[in-house]
Amino acid sequence: MLDCLVNGELSAFVGIDDRGLAFADGVWERVAVVNGHPWWWQDHFDRLVRGCERLGLTAPAQSVLLRELQTVARGRVRSLVKIVITRGTGAASYWPDGTGTATRMVSAYPWPEVPARLSQAGVPGRICDIRLAVQPALGGINHLNRLELVLAAREQQAFAGQEGLLLDTNDHLISAIDSNLFLVMGNHLLTPRMDRSGVRGILRGRIIREFKARTELRRITLDMLPEVSEAFVCDVIRGIVPLRSIGDHPLTIGSVTREIQDWLMELQSRQ
Amino acid sequence: MLDCLVNGELSAFVGIDDRGLAFADGVWERVAVVNGHPWWWQDHFDRLVRGCERLGLTAPAQSVLLRELQTVARGRVRSLVKIVITRGTGAASYWPDGTGTATRMVSAYPWPEVPARLSQAGVPGRICDIRLAVQPALGGINHLNRLELVLAAREQQAFAGQEGLLLDTNDHLISAIDSNLFLVMGNHLLTPRMDRSGVRGILRGRIIREFKARTELRRITLDMLPEVSEAFVCDVIRGIVPLRSIGDHPLTIGSVTREIQDWLMELQSRQ
Repeated sequence: MLDCLVNGELSAFVGIDDRGLAFADGVWERVAVVNGHPWWWQDHFDRLVRGCERLGLTAPAQSVLLRELQTVARGRVRSLVKIVITRGTGAASYWPDGTGTATRMVSAYPWPEVPARLSQAGVPGRICDIRLAVQPALGGINHLNRLELVLAAREQQAFAGQEGLLLDTNDHLISAIDSNLFLVMGNHLLTPRMDRSGVRGILRGRIIREFKARTELRRITLDMLPEVSEAFVCDVIRGIVPLRSIGDHPLTIGSVTREIQDWLMELQSRQ
Repeated sequence: MLDCLVNGELSAFVGIDDRGLAFADGVWERVAVVNGHPWWWQDHFDRLVRGCERLGLTAPAQSVLLRELQTVARGRVRSLVKIVITRGTGAASYWPDGTGTATRMVSAYPWPEVPARLSQAGVPGRICDIRLAVQPALGGINHLNRLELVLAAREQQAFAGQEGLLLDTNDHLISAIDSNLFLVMGNHLLTPRMDRSGVRGILRGRIIREFKARTELRRITLDMLPEVSEAFVCDVIRGIVPLRSIGDHPLTIGSVTREIQDWLMELQSRQ
């Protein structure tokens, strides 16, 4: 961790009675900041606000968050800034006491190393044994209840070089562990709906908007795979990572995936 | 909060890069301590160990936890001591870095006020709108992913004096928000299985063992209610709280509930 602010004060610590720690009672964002410029900042802020609304939290002012983000990222060419908003103190009971002021944490992390050939060569996709729970009250938002993704990451450590993909308990394919998923069927893009589980990723949202005439939000089951020719996962850090397979189903790295990689490269060069 | 230890040191703070805060990557216990004596300590420790095993965490030594629990509770007639064990630092990624040492937090909270007539008069039970997600990988253990219970508690605030009861997304009745549930059918006790969601409460476990000849762990659906004559919820703080109804179904506060209240009173008087 490089630099951190807690409620605007230089600090790397939070009270152990914070509800974020006690009950995962909060939301977060992880923003790529390059030369002081946060990528897709409005998208991140909008998602944070939607998450706060869902949980009944008061979102901080956008200008405050942006200033704090730039403070912690200062002096770094590239960093990941994590923003966490919790319901404040009150670890004694699930019942919020109503007087709690939200806790706001903003901290900078180093940009992780990404293997250079990943976006060219792609990775095989492996279906994880662990499933995502179905919880419509939390579907799509980026909340702090992420233990099942930690367990998925632990499971996937035995399969280095493969991308862990997650089904929900209803047998719907939802996402990778830390990335969203797109499938190519003919000239169309299919991406799973995020209303019951998963996180509406920022890059996912950009792709849906940019390619909306060709994109469908769908419930996706594994029996649809024979009609799928290409697939990729996407996140802000790694960009577009082609999948060479999903389980036993082989995929090609084809023209649609390359088109979206080119679009992203062009977009990022203009950031 | 009265007194707190973090990894054995007097502190009320934890790093904001702790995985407990970042991903709810941990487990916890809340232990009733009366005159320095923790109620049902072995049961709490055993549940903590089972939770740590499920998540792949190393549980602290029992003697260390007991000593710390007694340290933070010192000088209080009654307190609730919260123990939190997380996977340590590493908030940058779901992937545990493998070098992290668990973080251990032990803190004392005041005993909450419980309305005096609760165990005599009981409360009506209301079925909450929000459902518990089904996640077998986490069912039964007392992990930190508790946002859906916070949302249930928020929903229930509009229904003061009623007990919020929770169905899972498969329409199985699981528990109250912060208590386990027992139904009386004839002379038998039924209690929901905790393998897919919910927490295996300490008092629930005691009742199952004490009354094992008459207790069944079952999947419980609302269509079973016409055969249910009594019901109660139980937790370490409030003891046995009779339900006067579950939704539209009226219940009596009958001899089985009173028998179990008497058993608990006798047990607690010997603690």
